Amino acid sequence: MAARGANDPDRRDRIIAATLAVIGERGVHQTSHRVIAARAGVPLGSLTYYFDGLSDILEQAFAALAERMSEQYRATLAVARSREEACAAVVDLICGSYASPDDVRALFEMYSFGNYDAKVHDLCRDWLLLSRASLGLHFAEPTARALDALVEAWPMHQAWEGTPLDRDYVAAVVQALVDRFEPAAESATV
Amino acid sequence: MAARGANDPDRRDRIIAATLAVIGERGVHQTSHRVIAARAGVPLGSLTYYFDGLSDILEQAFAALAERMSEQYRATLAVARSREEACAAVVDLICGSYASPDDVRALFEMYSFGNYDAKVHDLCRDWLLLSRASLGLHFAEPTARALDALVEAWPMHQAWEGTPLDRDYVAAVVQALVDRFEPAAESATV
Repeated sequence: MAARGANDPDRRDRIIAATLAVIGERGVHQTSHRVIAARAGVPLGSLTYYFDGLSDILEQAFAALAERMSEQYRATLAVARSREEACAAVVDLICGSYASPDDVRALFEMYSFGNYDAKVHDLCRDWLLLSRASLGLHFAEPTARALDALVEAWPMHQAWEGTPLDRDYVAAVVQALVDRFEPAAESATV
Repeated sequence: MAARGANDPDRRDRIIAATLAVIGERGVHQTSHRVIAARAGVPLGSLTYYFDGLSDILEQAFAALAERMSEQYRATLAVARSREEACAAVVDLICGSYASPDDVRALFEMYSFGNYDAKVHDLCRDWLLLSRASLGLHFAEPTARALDALVEAWPMHQAWEGTPLDRDYVAAVVQALVDRFEPAAESATV
């Protein structure tokens, strides 16, 4: 088993990807070695070659998810070349452009699992600080802190209501916070 | 077993309370009939007398949680007698006065389980609509929608960072939204 694992460098990544897919579809409470192995198309025993138990698999899967989401979050903001474009990017983040429904469900699972697992708790904290730092490319800390709360909550609320958010309304909320907390709201951030 | 159950009208409530305690301490992924029965101090078989399987226990436990949290949320707002008091009540909600750490963890579990269970999904939506309606005692719908997002996200962020929110800052954010969206921000709401 070890030799087969060592001969297939993609296998670990495939197991991670399968784990995130299973978590997104079924939730952590219905995730098992058996389901992950079947989804990844690998022998059950290969999971123990790469990972030290189910918690380790989940921790590494959530780490991969947080890394990817953080990069997407940052990329959405990094391309903005003015305060106006930065606000539009925040509206995009809030209205859910950067995360698939499966990703949003997997994030929920990460938050929830993080209450009972120290490593995933740290991932949640780091993901929060990275998001705020990405907003910090364009906004002062008090603005960033409030905007990130909206990016956190509104996609969740949108999923429960089953109706898309009104982009004009979201833009007005973003603007109200920028007007209140940015020292020079009119200046471009380039 | 049925007779014993029928003779103890509090037993169902005790099982529900034990389920919420177990969920808060261990998460849904580590919750089982056995752990719930042990925590409630009831025979394992009595769970099948009152409930139609583990999903049914979880659904009823989350329904009880959502009902209690909704009442606390509403009560926090209902006592406010002016716009100023209503804003202070929102700051209280955001800074976490109405929910214990165990309740916050159990809410996370409800959100997460709601992605995979239709009844709990509906509970999440109803809890959202009830929260917004409670804010509606004092605020117009656009204000309420934004304030509720902050009440959702910030206690979560506070838990990850391990540092309390700055109440003056939170109050300034609340005021910025009120100033932007309330048609007559100066008037009392009594």
